[in-house]
Amino acid sequence: MKATPTRKQLGERIRKLRKKLGISQEELGFRAGVHRTYIGAIERAEQNVSIDTIHGIAKALKVSPKDLL
Amino acid sequence: MKATPTRKQLGERIRKLRKKLGISQEELGFRAGVHRTYIGAIERAEQNVSIDTIHGIAKALKVSPKDLL
Repeated sequence: MKATPTRKQLGERIRKLRKKLGISQEELGFRAGVHRTYIGAIERAEQNVSIDTIHGIAKALKVSPKDLL
Repeated sequence: MKATPTRKQLGERIRKLRKKLGISQEELGFRAGVHRTYIGAIERAEQNVSIDTIHGIAKALKVSPKDLL
């Protein structure tokens, strides 16, 4: 299925905030409890990520989940 | 797995906005392209809903996905 604009925006926001923090996909994955390849797939909007994973990534990026949308 | 606070908030926000629009779970499900029992489960935070489904529900509720978090 084609990724929604919301999914694409989520991936772009995560990448932007991760780079702002100066951390790698591996480091973000470690902090959020998911594999680094999964972070890459989320950033490229290849993964239809769940709300609980969004929660974990937001926490790892030290932002509100709302800030990822 | 225990629902995250973000998942709980999502469910509460969806229920609140759905009632504000004065539509049933069945009607919201119809508009968002998901089954009414799934809407019920999302509102009760029983479902770890995906970003694409959040996109569809936000559209059906005529709000931004950000407004659901």
